[in-house]
Amino acid sequence: MPRFSKSVSALRSSAIRELMSLASRPDILSFAGGMPGNELFPIDEVEELFRNLDTKTKQAAFQYGPTPGLPSLLESLGGFLERKGLPVKKNRLMITTGSQQALSIFARAFVDPGDRVLTEYPCFIGAIAAFRACGAEIVSLPVDEAGIDIAMLRQEVENPDPAKFLYITPYFHNPAGMLYSTNRKRKLIKALQGRDIPLLEDDAYGDLWFSDEHREALQPIKAIDPEDIDVCYMGSFSKILGPGLRLGWMLAPEAIYEKCELIKQSADACSSSFTQVIADAFIRSGRIDTYVASVREEYKRRAASMVKALRSNLPAYVRWNEPKGGFYIWLTLPEGADATEILKRAIEGGAVFVTGSTFDPQGTRNNTMRLSYCNNTPEEIERGIPIITRAIREVCG
Amino acid sequence: MPRFSKSVSALRSSAIRELMSLASRPDILSFAGGMPGNELFPIDEVEELFRNLDTKTKQAAFQYGPTPGLPSLLESLGGFLERKGLPVKKNRLMITTGSQQALSIFARAFVDPGDRVLTEYPCFIGAIAAFRACGAEIVSLPVDEAGIDIAMLRQEVENPDPAKFLYITPYFHNPAGMLYSTNRKRKLIKALQGRDIPLLEDDAYGDLWFSDEHREALQPIKAIDPEDIDVCYMGSFSKILGPGLRLGWMLAPEAIYEKCELIKQSADACSSSFTQVIADAFIRSGRIDTYVASVREEYKRRAASMVKALRSNLPAYVRWNEPKGGFYIWLTLPEGADATEILKRAIEGGAVFVTGSTFDPQGTRNNTMRLSYCNNTPEEIERGIPIITRAIREVCG
Repeated sequence: MPRFSKSVSALRSSAIRELMSLASRPDILSFAGGMPGNELFPIDEVEELFRNLDTKTKQAAFQYGPTPGLPSLLESLGGFLERKGLPVKKNRLMITTGSQQALSIFARAFVDPGDRVLTEYPCFIGAIAAFRACGAEIVSLPVDEAGIDIAMLRQEVENPDPAKFLYITPYFHNPAGMLYSTNRKRKLIKALQGRDIPLLEDDAYGDLWFSDEHREALQPIKAIDPEDIDVCYMGSFSKILGPGLRLGWMLAPEAIYEKCELIKQSADACSSSFTQVIADAFIRSGRIDTYVASVREEYKRRAASMVKALRSNLPAYVRWNEPKGGFYIWLTLPEGADATEILKRAIEGGAVFVTGSTFDPQGTRNNTMRLSYCNNTPEEIERGIPIITRAIREVCG
Repeated sequence: MPRFSKSVSALRSSAIRELMSLASRPDILSFAGGMPGNELFPIDEVEELFRNLDTKTKQAAFQYGPTPGLPSLLESLGGFLERKGLPVKKNRLMITTGSQQALSIFARAFVDPGDRVLTEYPCFIGAIAAFRACGAEIVSLPVDEAGIDIAMLRQEVENPDPAKFLYITPYFHNPAGMLYSTNRKRKLIKALQGRDIPLLEDDAYGDLWFSDEHREALQPIKAIDPEDIDVCYMGSFSKILGPGLRLGWMLAPEAIYEKCELIKQSADACSSSFTQVIADAFIRSGRIDTYVASVREEYKRRAASMVKALRSNLPAYVRWNEPKGGFYIWLTLPEGADATEILKRAIEGGAVFVTGSTFDPQGTRNNTMRLSYCNNTPEEIERGIPIITRAIREVCG
């Protein structure tokens, strides 16, 4: 047996791979993935944008670029982020290979095997994977409909063996679907100030709001720019252009950025210049704004279909959120219910979703389930939801 | 100060960033980079290939793909590698974000802080960075014109605290330029067999041979498929299509592959589908073969210009290799000479190269220098080499 490193020896394959192969079967309706709909990608626009680039830019697309990103994209993206109120000039911006790489780099920057890190429960599986790969011990604090449990967070920041960071996804949470309230963010800031626990703020879905009234709650903590907290902000082109480009970003204070750039250099030298050139043109042409506006409407339509189907079919004992944006609806079943058993029956009926235990760093709590509406037409949603609600009734009564 | 992880706390910025910014100044002739010439990229061919793809494939380009790579590319690349005699079916193939990511993944799979790893001296800087980022203690064994020092390797494999792996770049070495002899490979295999020290074989330049007569020496050790060694082979599209696509690959035994796939999933989920779709079309159309044949000729022409310029201008006390392929010529100055002083004077004259200490994991030995001919026209080479040889004479007499 090869002599693997300690943190890697402990890594075990997750159930996600198997689930995703199920999800790609044409005879199964999948509400499992967090993938944008294939038919929504701006293919023609991107082809046209690329065709009209000058030769020098096209050559740059094939060439190595600087580790932090192509200067032109750093500039255009910086402008895009400044329009959201983010303090771009006071920090350093870096392009990453998807925001997954930002997570991986932050984990490597801070975590030695056995170190404690704080996350939400439920928690984005990509974060669980990135933290585990560094040997982190994950302590997860529950979220309700307005954000993370502040009492538990206060307890954790008093711990004499302080966690290396707190990771949150406050804006249309994956998988919990919810949006942090302004008040909850304020309390979170207060709990962290002066504690030497950096905040990793993941904002992959914030652009996908369904109504203007939530704009205030969408202000990133990084944009509030609180004193005495190292806020490391990250975002992604995956939901506002296409995940296949593998482009995300991090905006971090100088001292943290410096280490992250060295890790990035060692990890993949730079992100794809080819897709960076495309993202830059997409921003500079203004297409990003019209495109995001159009997918916002489409996801809103899909969410409404799923809400309608759930309202008609879901037993009253299931708690769930009506989404204000993003991709997900999170169902909480009665205590002790087994989402894995429901999944089995749903698959037999021809529909698939992700069970809650997948998003539990401890891998135990399983009376929850995530439904995605991002990758289905309203018709598919109308057909698929009754299969799932029937499976719930069969298992939970 | 943020509480960084142990291996990251020790990371220091390399001189490479500064050098590369010098190298991009239009008034300086750069023989520093390992970048293909911008004017050589197959831009029109790739645009045409992309335009002619069907809608489903274009959609897949924007979408997430499986962590190991798009199935169609794994198939076409597998065929490409089998034609080189590589045992693709007996191993597992994975697409990586440049071969830099393959290095980073292997390092993370095997290295705990303080673990010893074996490299060549001189050694590819990307490998030094990847190993350092995991806290490796690098033990470097010198190469001569035929390969690594076998006596020293034999000593190392007897070490009671055995190294985690041996990393080599046997085919048109970066930076040493040389090609391992068949005999040296045979001895290396014998030294490693049954020793539980995996071999990381980096073959980023092997396709860029200048003459058919070296084809035998170019057979990868992975293709020889020796018993009782875990050979992990890696390659890259950077030199045979474009580094800006950020696509490389690893071919590894199942048990090692399994861990690597988990690390890859946590590192960036998958490599760019967009550029994978392009690489797949490039292979399937046969363009890769005509393109590689054409750049081979061009690099051969550039190498010949540099050889000619060095023959006319270099003092006799400088030892160097006449390249048989790849991108580099490696100069060895008299013992005690300081390549950094030569670099300073060369920059004043308007030319830049990379000093040997950059490729020394210990960062001390500095009587060597790397000249790249890949990114310069013969005219630029004729103008630039005398600037560098003059600087050598000024410093070394």
